[in-house]
Order: sequence, then C-alpha cells, then structure tokens
Amino acid sequence: MSDVPASRVGWPDPRVVEALERVRAGKPLTYGLTNYIAAPLSANMLLAVGASPAIGGIPLGAAHFATIAGGAWINLAALISDTPELLLETARAANAASTPWVLDPVTVGAGIEATDALAAQLIDLGPAVVRGNASEVVALAGGDGATKGVDSTVSSEAAIPFAKSLAQRTGGVVAVSGPTDYLTDGVELVAVPGGHPYLTQVTGAGCSLGGLVAAFAAVVPDRLQAATAAHAVLATAAERAASRTRGTGSFAVALVDELSLLGVA
Amino acid sequence: MSDVPASRVGWPDPRVVEALERVRAGKPLTYGLTNYIAAPLSANMLLAVGASPAIGGIPLGAAHFATIAGGAWINLAALISDTPELLLETARAANAASTPWVLDPVTVGAGIEATDALAAQLIDLGPAVVRGNASEVVALAGGDGATKGVDSTVSSEAAIPFAKSLAQRTGGVVAVSGPTDYLTDGVELVAVPGGHPYLTQVTGAGCSLGGLVAAFAAVVPDRLQAATAAHAVLATAAERAASRTRGTGSFAVALVDELSLLGVA
Amino acid sequence: MSDVPASRVGWPDPRVVEALERVRAGKPLTYGLTNYIAAPLSANMLLAVGASPAIGGIPLGAAHFATIAGGAWINLAALISDTPELLLETARAANAASTPWVLDPVTVGAGIEATDALAAQLIDLGPAVVRGNASEVVALAGGDGATKGVDSTVSSEAAIPFAKSLAQRTGGVVAVSGPTDYLTDGVELVAVPGGHPYLTQVTGAGCSLGGLVAAFAAVVPDRLQAATAAHAVLATAAERAASRTRGTGSFAVALVDELSLLGVA
Repeated sequence: MSDVPASRVGWPDPRVVEALERVRAGKPLTYGLTNYIAAPLSANMLLAVGASPAIGGIPLGAAHFATIAGGAWINLAALISDTPELLLETARAANAASTPWVLDPVTVGAGIEATDALAAQLIDLGPAVVRGNASEVVALAGGDGATKGVDSTVSSEAAIPFAKSLAQRTGGVVAVSGPTDYLTDGVELVAVPGGHPYLTQVTGAGCSLGGLVAAFAAVVPDRLQAATAAHAVLATAAERAASRTRGTGSFAVALVDELSLLGVA
Repeated sequence: MSDVPASRVGWPDPRVVEALERVRAGKPLTYGLTNYIAAPLSANMLLAVGASPAIGGIPLGAAHFATIAGGAWINLAALISDTPELLLETARAANAASTPWVLDPVTVGAGIEATDALAAQLIDLGPAVVRGNASEVVALAGGDGATKGVDSTVSSEAAIPFAKSLAQRTGGVVAVSGPTDYLTDGVELVAVPGGHPYLTQVTGAGCSLGGLVAAFAAVVPDRLQAATAAHAVLATAAERAASRTRGTGSFAVALVDELSLLGVA
Repeated sequence: MSDVPASRVGWPDPRVVEALERVRAGKPLTYGLTNYIAAPLSANMLLAVGASPAIGGIPLGAAHFATIAGGAWINLAALISDTPELLLETARAANAASTPWVLDPVTVGAGIEATDALAAQLIDLGPAVVRGNASEVVALAGGDGATKGVDSTVSSEAAIPFAKSLAQRTGGVVAVSGPTDYLTDGVELVAVPGGHPYLTQVTGAGCSLGGLVAAFAAVVPDRLQAATAAHAVLATAAERAASRTRGTGSFAVALVDELSLLGVA
C-alpha cells in the first residue's frame, strides 16, 4: 500500500462539495450508538451539516432505528451505556436493512479483552466504514496498536498497510485519522490533509467523525467518496475554526459554526 | 380549538417577567430524567434562569428526588439510560408529593412500540404539562404523527386540535413547539411567537424546554401561565442570541448567555 | 482546625506552575467514573491542561483502566449510569495498582440512603483526595450537611473542622469547594482564593475539578500540593474567563480556553 501514491482530496473538491450538498438536501436520519462524552458534540456536528441525528440505545428501539436510518455508526465506547449484545443487534439490523454503518473502534488495543473480542465480531459483520486512530486500526488489523487509553501511539502513515489489509477483510473502507487522514478501500488510497491539532484536544471531535461518515454514506453510494468527503469537510471546518479562536473551548464552538456555514454562507 | 383565537404572549409581558423573577428568587430544585445528549445543555439552561437542576436516574434515588423537587420532567429519550419502570416510578412519586411534572414525549410516533406504550402509561398518570413537537403531540393524541427519528413532520398549527384533546384527557397543559409555539389547557389557547430556526439545529434545545417548564411550574401555580412563561423566555433568549452569532455553535453558547442575562442585566 | 491559620496559595505560586508543567509534560491517563451531565466539560478541561482523559464505566474494563491510569476519580453521580459495585471495584483496583483516586461525593447528605451508604464504603477504601462542596463534606464527616439536591447549604468555612476530621480518617486530603476553597491533610490547611460565582452556574464545573485533581495527583506525589495546584489552576482560569465574558454560556467556553492557555501563552 505504501507504494501506491495517495490522491489528495480536500475542500473545495467538487465531489466533496456535492456530497455536502446531498447531506443538506437529504437530511438523512443518522443513528448512533456512541458514548455520552462525545454525544452532544456529535449531534451538534451532524445538525450543522444538515443531517438528522438520533443517538442512544433504547433496548427495544435500537434495531428499529438502524433499520429506518439512512446511515448508522457504532462507537465501541457506547459500552459505557449499552450492552455488547445491543451493538451486535444494531449492526445486524443495519445489515438486514442495507443501512451503511460505521464502526469506530475506540479503545481497541488498550488492553480490554472484552472490547477487543466485540470489535472482532463487529468486523465480521462487515461495516461499510471503519474509522479510527492509527493505534486502533493497527490493533484491529492484528498488529500491536498499543492504544494509550483512548489516544493513539502510532503514526497514521505507519497504519496504512494495516488499513489496507483490514479493508480487504471487511470489503469496506478503512479511515485512519491523524495529522493527515488516510482512507482506503483496500486498493485506492486517499489522503485528506489539513485539520488542526486542536481536534485532538476537544473531546468527541474524533468520535463525531464516525457520525459524519455515516451521514455522508447515507446519501453518497460510493463509500470511499462518502468517507473522504466527511473527513475533508471536518478538516476544512477545523482549519477555519482554528484561524479565529485562541483556545480549545472557543475552537469547539467555532468548529460547529464553520460546519454549519460550510457551502452555505 | 382552531376557532378559538390564540392570545399572543411574549417577553416583556408582565406575567412572563414575574414568572422568571420567581424562578430566580426561588431557585427551585428541578429534577429531570432525560437523555445524555440533551442533559448538559438542559442543566446549563436551568442554571441560567436561576433554577437548581438535578438530572439522572439513580435507581434508588429517583423517587426521592421527584418527591423533594419543586418540579420534575421526564423525557422519553431517558430510555437510553433508564428503565421504563424508573420513569413510571418517578412520575408516581411526583404525583404522590404533588410535584408538578412535565412529559416530553421524544420519539413517540417514530415506530417504537415499547416507547409508545410507555408514553400512554405516563399520560394516564396525568402530567402537569406535556411538551413536544407537533408530530409527537399528534401521535400522543392518537393521530398519525409520523415522527422522523426525533424530528417533526407536522406543522404546529395542524397539531392544535390534537393538543386540545390531549389536554382535556390529561387535565393539564399541552405545549407544541414550532416556529410559533402553541399552548393550551384544553380551553384557552396561547401562542408564543419568536424563537429562531437555530433552536432546531442545536441538540437538546427542545429537550431543555421540558426542564424550563418544570422549573417555572415549581414556582408558578397556574400551569398554563408557567408553561407559557418558559416558552416565552426561551423564544426571547433565542432571538437575542441569533442576532449576535453567525453559526449554530456560537448560537448555543449565546442562548445560555441570554438566558442568564434576561431580566437581570 | 479553625485555630490553624490557612496558608493562601494561588497562581503563579511556583509549586502550582510546576505542577501544571508536569501535567502538560506527562499527559497522564486520567480515568473517571462520573455522570453524563458533567462528562463532556470534564473531558475538555482535562484535555485543556494536557491530561489524557478516559471516562465511563465499561463493566469489563473499569478495573483495567483504574489500573493503567496515572490517576482516577469517582463521582457518586456516576450512579446514574454505573452500579455501586462498579464504583467499589474501580476504587479497589486503583488501590491495588497504587493509582491515586479522588472521591467526589455528589449528593451525599441529600437524603438518599443508598448513596450515603456507598460513600461510606468508598471512604473506607481510602481515597487520596475527597473533593466536595461544604454540605457534602460535612455530611461525609457525620455532620448535618443538608445538601439541597446537588447544591451546598453550608459555608466552606463551617466545613473546615469536618474536613480535618475526615482527612484524619482517610489518611488523605479533603478539599472543600466554595468562594474560597479549603484543603487539608488533617494537619495543614491551605486556602485557595479566587474563582468566580459563575463556576456554580455552569454544570459540571465543580465535578470537573475532581478530574483535575486526579490528573495532578498522577504527576505530583504530594497529595495536598497536587490538589491545591488543581484548585488554584481552576480558580485562575475562572477569574480570567469571567473578565472577558458576559454570561454563563460564554464563560464556560472561555474557562476551557483559559485552561488551555494557562502557563502556555
């Protein structure tokens, strides 16, 4: 994979602009099982791009939501509120309804056996997109990711071959977040430059990307293009937000502002 | 109902101003079972008007909190963290202690049978106020609400006759949120104009209104007046916030600012 | 205790500055069981001072996180999501791994027997630091705290003798938050002046302090010094934030900004 030159994609690439227009026009119901630390920001970021988020695992309703949604995402840190069974049931319901779903493997490789085992089961269910940091993707692909709590200890570039191998296994797309994001369907490699280090200092900004990818996948059939557009939109909003703020608190606010204005104002 | 002309109420109607003054003076303990997406903003909005919020279902403590609180609210999306039994137990404890409580029927009519069944049980317990969007109120009243996830697909005006019928059934007030909010006790109809479309693009802003109504109901005995004042206060704060912000992120921040300053500065 | 004059400590006391530098350099993994109302702000405040937060009770992973973390905190309002057993198991795992942990006794003394009983068990496990408001500390020490929901009804000064007695019992530090914060190891008494009343009007600001103390305790061996530095850092950031904002919404944002800039810019 490292011998395949990555194409670089960012705003205002016409495919990215068009993908965002589709989200704003389609207002896709985007259903997420995620954690309560990231949930408020994730919902606000989804609303800012025009999607219609619904978050949280109602035991008797999760499968229903995964069925009626345009896209879904499952963040492993949902385990702080939801059972492993609910995550699996939601993924299966999404598959049965052909709802594209995103797996965000938070804390995989951090040393929790039960989480790693659940992640392996979810991978077997074929997520349309896996989105994680480098450590998590390496760990998912069977390498030594050495996740530190919820943070990565591996560079995005080092994770590329693992991402390729994982994408070939799932038949979907794998996205690695980092200073430059890399996305691959197992063959093609795309690089999304930009973003800002502050994204790693705002809780839930990375987790929210799982939701954005799900929203874009709801309206853009090509999974690599959908995931790439979501990453490019966030990277651009982050750059613009950082340029007019002086700390991580106002950056988080400006990030939502810029997402709500991108391609509109 | 549609033949009863609605009286229009907004800030600085003296009854609204006085109601807010009572909240600031009384600092009512306001207890909520709500969802973790809306909870932080709900708590901050309650603190901003001077109330003392406590949120979340401690299994052995929810009934106690409903008993000692001045007002309570139950948001059906609490089911992502709490059991149906806890919601029912909390409503019964509130009734036993004569604590006015608000039902926010999030996702009613979205197709989840268990949620719809629980909502019907809660309606039978006689909430002081039901506050929802048009789809939810229509669905609760037995019409075809066709809720899309958590969003409404029906206009507020179309929901008015359903709101009236529902209020007559509960013996309380029913409030329908929309571009213009409508509130009724089954006889009188009040319209609260204003607000801002951004309110629908900030997660939890609608849910927070359930908490505000509970806080106002804790200190204003007339339920229609309490609910109306809460809606008018939020609508006014939203207008002021929108006038000085440029995106949905800073709008959410300014909304809390304006609530904290209304009638004070 | 009231006959021991308190030493006053604040920014830029060299011990406080050095403690913050250690957090920024060490990026300690700081693990928290807290409530979903406070969790997003707590995580953002920890990220702002350079720590690496992980929050939430994964049933099969909490003990693991407490073991690998540099510091941990347990907030009793975690009971809205987690079981009493998980809190106890986490505290025991932290003890076994010599991970210093902080107990935040939210709602102790508010009249919930189960919560009070759990708090007593946790106290017996010897938290490195107990951090609460005056009512909670008084109630924990066996006095009549009369907590109103989650708010204090007792002055910080009145809580000092109770804090001293509690510290002697736990063998750790007890910190009482208020207009002036007081901290004691049972012998020495430290006062941290400053802060701002807005801290009590932003949900989770107090709860976040439990996380900050855990992060500082991860890198500063002297517990009293660690806890004092965390309090002084928050008090200073709060003062700076209040000086450039006009409501509680923008104050919360500026608070994170100032934490992220303190000692850096």
